Amino acid sequence: MTSSAIAHTADLQAALVRRLGAASVITDPQDQVRYCRDWHGDVTSGAVAVLRPDSTQAVAEAVRVCAELGLAVVPQGGNTGLVLGATPDDPQHQVVLTLERMNRVRSMDPGDFSAVVEAGCVLQQVQEAAEDAGMFLGLSLGAEGSCQIGGNISTNAGGINVLRYGMAREQVLGLEVVLPDGTILDALGTLRKDNRGIDIKQLFIGAEGILGVVTAVSLKLHPRPEQVETALLGVDSLHTAIALYRRARRDCCDLMTAFEFMPPSAFMLAREAIPSLTLPIAMDHPGYVLMELSGSGLVDMRALLDRFLENVMADELVRDGVVAASRAQAANLWKFREAMNEGQAQRGAHLRTDVSVSLSQLSSFVEQAETRLRAEFPDCLTLSYGHVGDGNVHINVIPPASADAVERDRVIHDAKDCINAVIDEFRGSISAEHGIGRLKRPEFEARISDPRRQLLTAIKRAIDPDGRLNPNCQIRCNA
Amino acid sequence: MTSSAIAHTADLQAALVRRLGAASVITDPQDQVRYCRDWHGDVTSGAVAVLRPDSTQAVAEAVRVCAELGLAVVPQGGNTGLVLGATPDDPQHQVVLTLERMNRVRSMDPGDFSAVVEAGCVLQQVQEAAEDAGMFLGLSLGAEGSCQIGGNISTNAGGINVLRYGMAREQVLGLEVVLPDGTILDALGTLRKDNRGIDIKQLFIGAEGILGVVTAVSLKLHPRPEQVETALLGVDSLHTAIALYRRARRDCCDLMTAFEFMPPSAFMLAREAIPSLTLPIAMDHPGYVLMELSGSGLVDMRALLDRFLENVMADELVRDGVVAASRAQAANLWKFREAMNEGQAQRGAHLRTDVSVSLSQLSSFVEQAETRLRAEFPDCLTLSYGHVGDGNVHINVIPPASADAVERDRVIHDAKDCINAVIDEFRGSISAEHGIGRLKRPEFEARISDPRRQLLTAIKRAIDPDGRLNPNCQIRCNA
Repeated sequence: MTSSAIAHTADLQAALVRRLGAASVITDPQDQVRYCRDWHGDVTSGAVAVLRPDSTQAVAEAVRVCAELGLAVVPQGGNTGLVLGATPDDPQHQVVLTLERMNRVRSMDPGDFSAVVEAGCVLQQVQEAAEDAGMFLGLSLGAEGSCQIGGNISTNAGGINVLRYGMAREQVLGLEVVLPDGTILDALGTLRKDNRGIDIKQLFIGAEGILGVVTAVSLKLHPRPEQVETALLGVDSLHTAIALYRRARRDCCDLMTAFEFMPPSAFMLAREAIPSLTLPIAMDHPGYVLMELSGSGLVDMRALLDRFLENVMADELVRDGVVAASRAQAANLWKFREAMNEGQAQRGAHLRTDVSVSLSQLSSFVEQAETRLRAEFPDCLTLSYGHVGDGNVHINVIPPASADAVERDRVIHDAKDCINAVIDEFRGSISAEHGIGRLKRPEFEARISDPRRQLLTAIKRAIDPDGRLNPNCQIRCNA
Repeated sequence: MTSSAIAHTADLQAALVRRLGAASVITDPQDQVRYCRDWHGDVTSGAVAVLRPDSTQAVAEAVRVCAELGLAVVPQGGNTGLVLGATPDDPQHQVVLTLERMNRVRSMDPGDFSAVVEAGCVLQQVQEAAEDAGMFLGLSLGAEGSCQIGGNISTNAGGINVLRYGMAREQVLGLEVVLPDGTILDALGTLRKDNRGIDIKQLFIGAEGILGVVTAVSLKLHPRPEQVETALLGVDSLHTAIALYRRARRDCCDLMTAFEFMPPSAFMLAREAIPSLTLPIAMDHPGYVLMELSGSGLVDMRALLDRFLENVMADELVRDGVVAASRAQAANLWKFREAMNEGQAQRGAHLRTDVSVSLSQLSSFVEQAETRLRAEFPDCLTLSYGHVGDGNVHINVIPPASADAVERDRVIHDAKDCINAVIDEFRGSISAEHGIGRLKRPEFEARISDPRRQLLTAIKRAIDPDGRLNPNCQIRCNA
């Protein structure tokens, strides 16, 4: 940075402190790090400041002041995103606006099956507040102890319960949003049915903060599932797993809350993370399904699961299976799923993808992608797993232990191209649940149709004409 | 019309016929009537022409030609809407664009739980095509024999299954839309999870055709509910009905597909329409609930309903009840619900509303509204019924038989103001499922917040800068 740039930054920081108060402005570079480094720690940047408003009015004021000072605003929740959507990339012209101090549960109304919470509430905090009221929030994901509900909404988070409850979008009854000019849009009602014109709040769900800063959200709540039954099943193939999924939707009356597919290498990876991990099922099946049924009230979930498994084993859709007899046993089955992720992380830098195709084409897609990857990257470990019921798989490619950083970068780059080419043939999505952010913007922009690009650009310009909110994220309007 | 206007209209008609072909252009005023008169027959207008394109390309061409000729386009589905959203109001400057010839099922993929259909498919046709494939579409409403799926999407239709499957929005996986400049937006995928940037298709759902013409839609399908159990229950009050609803969601594991509340006067009205109608339950209860459980596979719905009713009768939430023992008996219970509507129609012009509040406030809201209505309109019959689980009621006010047209108009106008005042106090919606159209635009515009108005206007101008699509519907941008 030149000395004039430093002086300019210092002036901006002083102006921010003067206008917003020292308690709401972080300027110390060390204190900024956790807001300016991404979740994986791959990318670290900086910002003029990190702003920490504690109310909707304070967010609006921060946005207005930044506009006056010519600063762009990067909104940030728990900073657990995987696509660089909430971290800055232009240290001299951007501030991070963290919602972490807006973490109040404004209301919890079990009789209305709804809650209103501020954007900075950690997802787990919302889950627990719902549970304390005897209710259930239909959103659950790996980062739930750190991610914030505002970020979940802004990225339209998925997670493990999408099958039953839908993406984050489907949990939203209303939003409060600070617009790029500092205006507050109060669309925070809890109405289930409201056809008063275009449903403007939909625009901000999954917008990754490029159109406004989500400050609060009204959420749907559900009856708490009092019975949760978990099974780990061995199957012949992904193809059979999909047939099993279809059968389970029908036979189990759409009461599934999870249906996760894993290949046998998942167990090897899980063991690398937790060497003591044991599972009550043989580990030589070509595929595994972790299946969960949940329900409340008068339906006996265990009896339902037992009858279902009896039938599908008789029909040879399932080779072997075990049903957890206790919460501890169920937790152990889930530990397999989670330890597999840890095992991958321990293997060092590798390609992680998050793609989706139609369910009818999922097994052909995975077969083609894996065939090409194994031909092009014979030394790498390729594994495909995920939320199969949603057509969403993670096809990951792990270089051998011997690979150095340069070789790993090459694999990550080339294997991604290889998978994307197959995705394009299957008209699939390069981002099923993680979003676009800054990381996937080039891939996104390369694939987007002209009409869609024009619409996105027109909307961005209509709502944020000066490009103040999260520039360079998702789409570049000046491109 | 002046002779120069007539000559101008004739020129425009000739140009449309020349550009689009005689088979696609209706100019005869008699042939236009059914496209230019609203569903209730209350309002009849006219148009330069009615255009009947038979493909997406032909819709795009029609929209482009109209733009060149300076004509505005009013898109129309089955013309069953209740708020004048699909009929013209400026005969010399508007055409109606009907989607009725675009009525092909493009694909039906039970393995993917999805279908792709053209906008002009009648809803019932889509339901039947799904059923033929062993699947189920989660959208059902009174007009399903006439309304078209494109209209359902454009109005975000509700109906009787919202409880379980959500509004029309939640059935949509993808859309194909002709934009105001004639560009075709192909967003017709069937992906369940796709977080590639802002979900642009959401804008067109519930937009009542002011941003684009929906030409095709990808829909979610569900396993077909093989067991449907229906009960008619007598309850103490709406308050108790709501308590029963909450209990049913928990105890019946969210497997309800309908929960309709009716007051005792509903039976009187139903009998006026069908004098022979008899019901297997006493007609002197303060309220009635028509409840339906549906499911597929291994859950025994009848046993579930029986156990539930046993419990809630023991707990005195239900005074009396009957479960349909056959499809014919279930149809008879539903006939009660439908005949009530016919009975109202036979009473002549009256006020129909479609409002919603939060479920926690629903019974207080109805009590206050009814108290005020009975005080102000003592000679009228006031009745409140509807999809209680969604917080959605129809509070209708029927003038006495002796009232003349002038008196009826006065009641309709004043009673609406009376209900709207209570709605505003409860922060409810003046249009839960019917939309805004041209009919409710003044009420809508009077209540909308400045930030929301600015956003809607900015989006309309960004996408339809010349105001070519469905002008005067929902919001006036030049206002």
